Amino acid sequence: MRLALLLLLLGSVASPAWSQQRQRARAYGLAIGVLPTGPLNAITDVEGVRVGHTTVVQGKTVRTGVTAIIPHTGNVFQQKVPAAVYVGNGFGKLAGTTQVQELGNLETPIILTNTLAVGTGLNAVVDYVLRQPGNEQVRSVNAIVGETNDGYLNDIRSRSITEQHVRAAIEQASSGPVAEGNVGAGTGTVCFGFKGGIGTASRRLPAKLGGYTVGVLVQTNFGGVLQVNGVRVGETLGQFYLSEQLKDKADGSCMMVVATDAPVDARNLERLAKRAFMGLAKTGGIATNGSGDYVLAFSTHTGLRVPYASAEATQTATVLTNDAMSPLFLAAVEATEEAIINSLFKAETTTGTDNHTVEALPLDKVIPLLKKHHALKP
Amino acid sequence: MRLALLLLLLGSVASPAWSQQRQRARAYGLAIGVLPTGPLNAITDVEGVRVGHTTVVQGKTVRTGVTAIIPHTGNVFQQKVPAAVYVGNGFGKLAGTTQVQELGNLETPIILTNTLAVGTGLNAVVDYVLRQPGNEQVRSVNAIVGETNDGYLNDIRSRSITEQHVRAAIEQASSGPVAEGNVGAGTGTVCFGFKGGIGTASRRLPAKLGGYTVGVLVQTNFGGVLQVNGVRVGETLGQFYLSEQLKDKADGSCMMVVATDAPVDARNLERLAKRAFMGLAKTGGIATNGSGDYVLAFSTHTGLRVPYASAEATQTATVLTNDAMSPLFLAAVEATEEAIINSLFKAETTTGTDNHTVEALPLDKVIPLLKKHHALKP
Amino acid sequence: MRLALLLLLLGSVASPAWSQQRQRARAYGLAIGVLPTGPLNAITDVEGVRVGHTTVVQGKTVRTGVTAIIPHTGNVFQQKVPAAVYVGNGFGKLAGTTQVQELGNLETPIILTNTLAVGTGLNAVVDYVLRQPGNEQVRSVNAIVGETNDGYLNDIRSRSITEQHVRAAIEQASSGPVAEGNVGAGTGTVCFGFKGGIGTASRRLPAKLGGYTVGVLVQTNFGGVLQVNGVRVGETLGQFYLSEQLKDKADGSCMMVVATDAPVDARNLERLAKRAFMGLAKTGGIATNGSGDYVLAFSTHTGLRVPYASAEATQTATVLTNDAMSPLFLAAVEATEEAIINSLFKAETTTGTDNHTVEALPLDKVIPLLKKHHALKP
Amino acid sequence: MRLALLLLLLGSVASPAWSQQRQRARAYGLAIGVLPTGPLNAITDVEGVRVGHTTVVQGKTVRTGVTAIIPHTGNVFQQKVPAAVYVGNGFGKLAGTTQVQELGNLETPIILTNTLAVGTGLNAVVDYVLRQPGNEQVRSVNAIVGETNDGYLNDIRSRSITEQHVRAAIEQASSGPVAEGNVGAGTGTVCFGFKGGIGTASRRLPAKLGGYTVGVLVQTNFGGVLQVNGVRVGETLGQFYLSEQLKDKADGSCMMVVATDAPVDARNLERLAKRAFMGLAKTGGIATNGSGDYVLAFSTHTGLRVPYASAEATQTATVLTNDAMSPLFLAAVEATEEAIINSLFKAETTTGTDNHTVEALPLDKVIPLLKKHHALKP
Repeated sequence: MRLALLLLLLGSVASPAWSQQRQRARAYGLAIGVLPTGPLNAITDVEGVRVGHTTVVQGKTVRTGVTAIIPHTGNVFQQKVPAAVYVGNGFGKLAGTTQVQELGNLETPIILTNTLAVGTGLNAVVDYVLRQPGNEQVRSVNAIVGETNDGYLNDIRSRSITEQHVRAAIEQASSGPVAEGNVGAGTGTVCFGFKGGIGTASRRLPAKLGGYTVGVLVQTNFGGVLQVNGVRVGETLGQFYLSEQLKDKADGSCMMVVATDAPVDARNLERLAKRAFMGLAKTGGIATNGSGDYVLAFSTHTGLRVPYASAEATQTATVLTNDAMSPLFLAAVEATEEAIINSLFKAETTTGTDNHTVEALPLDKVIPLLKKHHALKP
Repeated sequence: MRLALLLLLLGSVASPAWSQQRQRARAYGLAIGVLPTGPLNAITDVEGVRVGHTTVVQGKTVRTGVTAIIPHTGNVFQQKVPAAVYVGNGFGKLAGTTQVQELGNLETPIILTNTLAVGTGLNAVVDYVLRQPGNEQVRSVNAIVGETNDGYLNDIRSRSITEQHVRAAIEQASSGPVAEGNVGAGTGTVCFGFKGGIGTASRRLPAKLGGYTVGVLVQTNFGGVLQVNGVRVGETLGQFYLSEQLKDKADGSCMMVVATDAPVDARNLERLAKRAFMGLAKTGGIATNGSGDYVLAFSTHTGLRVPYASAEATQTATVLTNDAMSPLFLAAVEATEEAIINSLFKAETTTGTDNHTVEALPLDKVIPLLKKHHALKP
Repeated sequence: MRLALLLLLLGSVASPAWSQQRQRARAYGLAIGVLPTGPLNAITDVEGVRVGHTTVVQGKTVRTGVTAIIPHTGNVFQQKVPAAVYVGNGFGKLAGTTQVQELGNLETPIILTNTLAVGTGLNAVVDYVLRQPGNEQVRSVNAIVGETNDGYLNDIRSRSITEQHVRAAIEQASSGPVAEGNVGAGTGTVCFGFKGGIGTASRRLPAKLGGYTVGVLVQTNFGGVLQVNGVRVGETLGQFYLSEQLKDKADGSCMMVVATDAPVDARNLERLAKRAFMGLAKTGGIATNGSGDYVLAFSTHTGLRVPYASAEATQTATVLTNDAMSPLFLAAVEATEEAIINSLFKAETTTGTDNHTVEALPLDKVIPLLKKHHALKP
Repeated sequence: MRLALLLLLLGSVASPAWSQQRQRARAYGLAIGVLPTGPLNAITDVEGVRVGHTTVVQGKTVRTGVTAIIPHTGNVFQQKVPAAVYVGNGFGKLAGTTQVQELGNLETPIILTNTLAVGTGLNAVVDYVLRQPGNEQVRSVNAIVGETNDGYLNDIRSRSITEQHVRAAIEQASSGPVAEGNVGAGTGTVCFGFKGGIGTASRRLPAKLGGYTVGVLVQTNFGGVLQVNGVRVGETLGQFYLSEQLKDKADGSCMMVVATDAPVDARNLERLAKRAFMGLAKTGGIATNGSGDYVLAFSTHTGLRVPYASAEATQTATVLTNDAMSPLFLAAVEATEEAIINSLFKAETTTGTDNHTVEALPLDKVIPLLKKHHALKP
């Protein structure tokens, strides 16, 4: 297993190399929305949140992977975080939703992978939690495993994701910049007919509004009529839902993870999650029938941790009022829109199973178009 | 009462006059989306759907009204239509939701008015249904009455809406073009800090996709960061949520009504309703805490009518499959976005209670801006 | 109006007289469940909760009324209470649900009445709130008005409920024992084919579980197969859903209101509300298609009040953990079951519109039956 | 694998032997409700429904298993069935819920197992579907895997369920009588502090109400205050939630599967599912915080099958009206109540991990008690 892991890590090291030519949206002057970003413009701007990818590229047919998002640096099972799920369109297999909705908390890393690997994801997370020091008595684990279907580029029926892949994504999770594009769970995804992938972004509220951070990470695999910062790129390129060009490309799904350090309880996290779906809409997504568009939102605020075992019948917490939520709503809309655009900017042209090729968003055409439409900062 | 009604009608006749200078978005070359509109680009493109407005403008303080949408020309209570509700953000008073959700049908006209007039709306609709020929035995009526809060321009505490106002909106409902802007339930509303109101739009699918029509009518009273066909108008004008200019303007809510002649059952109507919320997102709405963002969707397809009294335990119907819904989803997104923009284009600067004035969207600035951004058709 | 009110009160004074022969279930030794009751075995055991009835009996055809439940003795709009709604079966018109669900709080008295009087109830509550000292700036009110259909005994189409009736129920609301049976909103209701009405009960947890009180009030108008403390009374009396005897009796709905002084937030109140529906099931209710079975639950805990206007963006509160909810769940199940049984025990045989007569539950047969089945305490 | 399977089958053959002394409830004259049962009084009375168990008993510590319910005898993925999920209390891991809710259909066998085996269940079902003839192009599978926590008797952390166990349950699924008690997913469960397990029951409506069958299968692992046909058995035996005796026994969850041959669409199946939760309430279940109480309902009616691949945009179907649902609601309540009681009657005293012993419901005490309370048919 060690060897496997090593190879895996080497494999995954390769992927950032691919992406060096392509920059994130802001590098081109594309600044979505009115709120400032956090320092990394990534979900990891929310302190303690870590992200890890396992990129699985094998031969000519396997283009898939795993992405893990870990809410904090402690034992998440012992110190659960408030959380909520919003289902934009439920053609998807996100496991673990009902318990999050009922109890209002999250107790494991969040795993993103491909559609047929959800069971493997669950098994790996259960294994991880059972083995974690301090969890010796744990007999129930609500793992969160989401997916999109990368079957256009990936030989998904070969079921190449293993528990070790999942474990590796968890173990290599780190703070700091997040690899985007063709990495982890985004390795084989397709978005608006272009190569999709992993994207991330963040927003930080002004100090007078609390100074809170909202970070978003997405796995983009969906369709619609692409708009980039409002500019109708899909139409201009002639590639959009119902257009001739897109006939045979799979549309799919979008997993969105929203993290915040604001003290938000589960009820208001559900409302926050819904705003991520609004951000998806702004990119031109329409949540087609076949799309599994899910949002999982959580708060890392230490004052809201839910201890697994507690002698107390009550818990005291300071949370944002309903009224104070609106700036965070705007932050979630903006960060999700930008995270999706980042996934497209960073993803690379990919050839996979059945000799399918999906082109990257053609930045050589898109950047001039954005300029022409005054959608870039000077 | 007749006199009152007459004056009322005269009052309401006045309003189109206000709006003659301002045109709908398409008149300026603003064509949102990729699908064609219906002939009127209005909810009334869905055959049988009728709309009526009562505009209530009294003295310097009353700026309110009622808008009625009637699903078909028969007795709606006896021949209910499949329907569904989607709640984008529930800070609102839409009455009648739970029964629509449980039974999957709608049995009355839909009434839109101001926040404190929902009770009066219910009473008027109940009265209307009880009196309607054929309803002599009816003892239960699920009236649908939605609202937004026009209290910034309207002395809402004076509760000036009467049952006669509601009745008049129902009685004058007609097919054909729909008055927009400062009419009916949109008389006193505010949207993105500009004068909002009633707006409508439609989309018609190509024949190979069934040739179905989706029509949307909105009552706009909400906030966010305005984008017009993608162009960041709110930012350019310096007027948006969290900007200095908007500090003291109420943000509010958006009622959206989606009609289609496609044979869509209640379950898929709920999905269709959700896409209207995506259209709202595309205009820059963020569903702030104080917003009541509701969508009511129904199908007028005659094969899906639900008879009030039936000797049969079963009903046979031909409905669209899940897979066939996606083009309608796109239609609902586009029509809602355009209906909201139409409400802003058609609404006029208004002064009301407390000497509050809300400026209309300044088309003299906006049209050049849209041109500059290549957002108008040549 | 004063005169009208006086007559009304006199009318309502009459009703307790009817009920003197019939006792509540516990008076016969019928003790449902394993938890102790509060001192009054009523919703008013939750400190500060007040109940008021207006019983409207006119001539031979009007048998209806209004019941008001007020969460606390202060200004409820200014000091909202955490609240939640659960919809067991949504064939009903409970107004105000979506805002309670979105914001997690309740800001008005709860009004129960007949199906066609919901609009009047809303208008009366809005009027009450607007006039209340301290509410001079209020421009939005989310009134909660529920109903069941008393049209079998009451000429419901005559729409005899007035705003004054509603106002009177609010104004005469008091703590202390609660009138049950044919009073207020229960005046004309039918339950399991017998005369239904208002019922109430409570449970108090042992001190080691927090000593909290759960109180329930119900308006019973539903059907099924009656069981009294487990004993199959409906079957023995030959009167149950699908039996010959019940063919022409309307089945209807059940409104349930759950109050607690436990510090329970909105999310857990929704779970608590669902347990009231379980209590209904234990009486033999099956939530037929035509039934509007709704639960509204709220907490009176002063530490959880939600101020209308607050300069603070956060609120600190101490609430029960998920784990600590289960004893309250049991309390809600038991109190609801007993409240329904109390409504049947206290309701009197009634003749109303169309010469319809609905017999009271025949205690002369039921008590011996319960004895035979060892369902009474010795 | 063949050998493993053989041993498995032998192991599983053993279990009926244990149960021969204990009969189902009806054998003792216990007839719950007013509707007649189907011929087998089992979920398999719904034509085409098959059930298979794998009972996994290893050494002194492993007491677990798998139960599979297969909706019809064809290729379920190619011919999906209308379906819905109701979540009574969501502290559980039922995978696959959101897609069933969104699309209104079910495309795989339903697997019940223990809490930590859900991932293995998913993997096994995905494997099964991918291999099934006709599914060569399938790249997305929404497997339904539910669980309860048998960790009091089973060394659940050893994770002894394998994909072969799951496959075996599917492969040996058959029509005809269903083994109950300590079999399959019920091998190690605990219910009301007694040994729980698998139970089943059915109801058949009179011909004039359509002659439809409703069948229910349950995996019982929950707590509360046991009532058997209304008789307060838990109290009499001194063993109930909050009683001294039950202090250290885990309460858990209840999975309920409802099948019907009635032509019921997904919307009404969700309503039907909710009635199973009412049946659980009638046994004294209170859905404690830690309980995962889920219902999955489906219709086997051939006219409602949803083809995976269809050239048609519409589907014609004849379905029951809302009004016609109520008799089925009663059937679901009754069958669920009886299925739970059957699980207790058939389950045997079991000793498992940590030397924990859970006694079977003591029929020697319970039957006389039921007699005394006239709860048995003479």
